Amino acid sequence: MRHTISILVENKSGVFTRIGGLFSARGFNLDGISVGPTEDNSVSRLTIVTHGNDKIIEQVNKQLNKLIEVIKVIDLTLEDHVERELALIKVSCNSETRSEIMQIVNIFRANIVDISARTLTIEVTGIVDKVQALINLLRHFGIREVARTGAIALKREYERT
Amino acid sequence: MRHTISILVENKSGVFTRIGGLFSARGFNLDGISVGPTEDNSVSRLTIVTHGNDKIIEQVNKQLNKLIEVIKVIDLTLEDHVERELALIKVSCNSETRSEIMQIVNIFRANIVDISARTLTIEVTGIVDKVQALINLLRHFGIREVARTGAIALKREYERT
Repeated sequence: MRHTISILVENKSGVFTRIGGLFSARGFNLDGISVGPTEDNSVSRLTIVTHGNDKIIEQVNKQLNKLIEVIKVIDLTLEDHVERELALIKVSCNSETRSEIMQIVNIFRANIVDISARTLTIEVTGIVDKVQALINLLRHFGIREVARTGAIALKREYERT
Repeated sequence: MRHTISILVENKSGVFTRIGGLFSARGFNLDGISVGPTEDNSVSRLTIVTHGNDKIIEQVNKQLNKLIEVIKVIDLTLEDHVERELALIKVSCNSETRSEIMQIVNIFRANIVDISARTLTIEVTGIVDKVQALINLLRHFGIREVARTGAIALKREYERT
């Protein structure tokens, strides 16, 4: 099963190595990793997307909680959450295919962020499946390069009644 | 100086640990890390944002190139490139502040992706400075949670004349 795990850590050198080590020691393939600052400068948030046996992921969660730099581990898979990914896609184009690509870009509410005579670079944000669907659609024009962030996620809020 | 380094690696378990180890052994603080798939399933792209002495970063680049799983290292800082980051920001609101927050969201061309009586969750894409500017503006409403992807980047294309 696919898991999205959000980890708040103290922003110290070496912490990513230790967390990466925890996953690789168990042979986990990380589908995506995102690390960025939070509202507190001393704290970073890691979002890890991985897939595997639920029991083993539960063990990894426990191991993560034992690391001294780890403040909080949330397996968002178990909660209702908002998840988003960002991708930059550089696709080949010419004067004939450009308008067709631009139509696809509009349908996906994506943006063109760089243009040359032979390429378009597209920025798209959405759930992982949407980003993948756009990449699949653009494939036959010739994809030159792709950079994807891996997903980030936050828990949805509910009204307390 | 701030550096944005794009690294193409074979998608094997353990590779992120080794790359993280390279940086942490030199006491580098990684400001952001993004890992995602590329157009080739066996290859992942890491984008690392770091700051530090140019000479030491050059050394890290050389060390990275020696890792067997590393296919290509590009220090995009030295080239004209498109760079983007994605953030999810959960901010406190009430019936009085909601419309003011929505105005700010519109000005930044950001989107509201979750709403409750007391919170709004905002999705924003842009260069790192834009994302930071929005976070700074929203701070006095009360930021509850932030998730940021770290930057991703692709080289700009030029016409060959």
